Amino acid sequence: MQEDRTGTGALGQTHQQARQVSLELPDWAWEEMAALPSQLATPEERMAAVLHFARLNTLHATGGPFAAGIFTRDSGTLVVLAVNRVVPLICSCAHAEVMAISLAQKRLGCFDLGAAGLPAHELVVNWMPCAMCFGALLWSGIRSLVVAGYGPEMEAITGFDEGPLPPDWQQELARRGIAFRGNVLRAESLAAFREFAASGAPVYNARQGILP
Amino acid sequence: MQEDRTGTGALGQTHQQARQVSLELPDWAWEEMAALPSQLATPEERMAAVLHFARLNTLHATGGPFAAGIFTRDSGTLVVLAVNRVVPLICSCAHAEVMAISLAQKRLGCFDLGAAGLPAHELVVNWMPCAMCFGALLWSGIRSLVVAGYGPEMEAITGFDEGPLPPDWQQELARRGIAFRGNVLRAESLAAFREFAASGAPVYNARQGILP
Repeated sequence: MQEDRTGTGALGQTHQQARQVSLELPDWAWEEMAALPSQLATPEERMAAVLHFARLNTLHATGGPFAAGIFTRDSGTLVVLAVNRVVPLICSCAHAEVMAISLAQKRLGCFDLGAAGLPAHELVVNWMPCAMCFGALLWSGIRSLVVAGYGPEMEAITGFDEGPLPPDWQQELARRGIAFRGNVLRAESLAAFREFAASGAPVYNARQGILP
Repeated sequence: MQEDRTGTGALGQTHQQARQVSLELPDWAWEEMAALPSQLATPEERMAAVLHFARLNTLHATGGPFAAGIFTRDSGTLVVLAVNRVVPLICSCAHAEVMAISLAQKRLGCFDLGAAGLPAHELVVNWMPCAMCFGALLWSGIRSLVVAGYGPEMEAITGFDEGPLPPDWQQELARRGIAFRGNVLRAESLAAFREFAASGAPVYNARQGILP
């Protein structure tokens, strides 16, 4: 359907006079966040919550199969758990990491999650961030990145296009003082992407059909 | 001042219960857009409008010295001209390109500016996009990128951190069917960055003071 491919289906109209884009999570996300413990101590607990959100986002048809959480690095206090919102918000920038970083900064009143006076913050994602989100996390001020996995598997399973990371991305993170941990609940994450692929839910790459 | 560095100064409070981040331009931007011709035919005319917005953003203290416009590629119809809003919106993702792409998609009712049924769109920026915005433009659906310049000069003049582009970024654009044109009003753009640097206006890199 044309509506699904262009993203006009969700609202059914254009907004030619729109003067703002509101980055918002679905209502269920706030209800689920309220039901979580306020602190999640281990990387596995944090990732399990992220994977739960990624699955729910597909089940509720409120965005792509990606979720991202911002926690205080040491105590595991949840700041926000966000999900991908590209299609419902009609915004190709509304990846889970951009949603999480933007909402966390708003809630903490600070555009730099690594500013003096704040505890160190960690970003937890159900796969390695894409080209855009890798840049976004560099500017966010986070001091720790935890992913369920990295490499070509997610793209191969789902068909999402992740774009180019810097060839030395692990060193780039290290140079900027951002600790990295990969492969936390990797098998569970890949299983969820296989479920997504089997569901027939839409993949929202730009310029569909014209990529070589 | 602590307030300036952390970005809490603009609103003077935190928003712990905030459930959305609103990507908004300053009022002056809409007034200036209304005063522009509805079509700007040449790359130089489009860039001049972008440079005008970048300068005004510093003058009004409404964000960093960057602006980005989305135009229809062939006819030059203005969709939106946006500016950097990191500090006022307390959002490290609110670079000019992210603002322009997000607002353009909202106004056109489509998360893919390159979707079937839309005219081709062009992104015009007063310097080469940073690591995040390079990814953002790949996902936006634009089919043409025009910049005032690229290379280390802007970072050297202003102190802004742009992060790593893919080593083969020109080929990456070409592979994805995005035409590229550099060095449109380059000297004028660099002169504006020198003015910015001389003004003492804030530079908002993340984790100030801890980068090596």
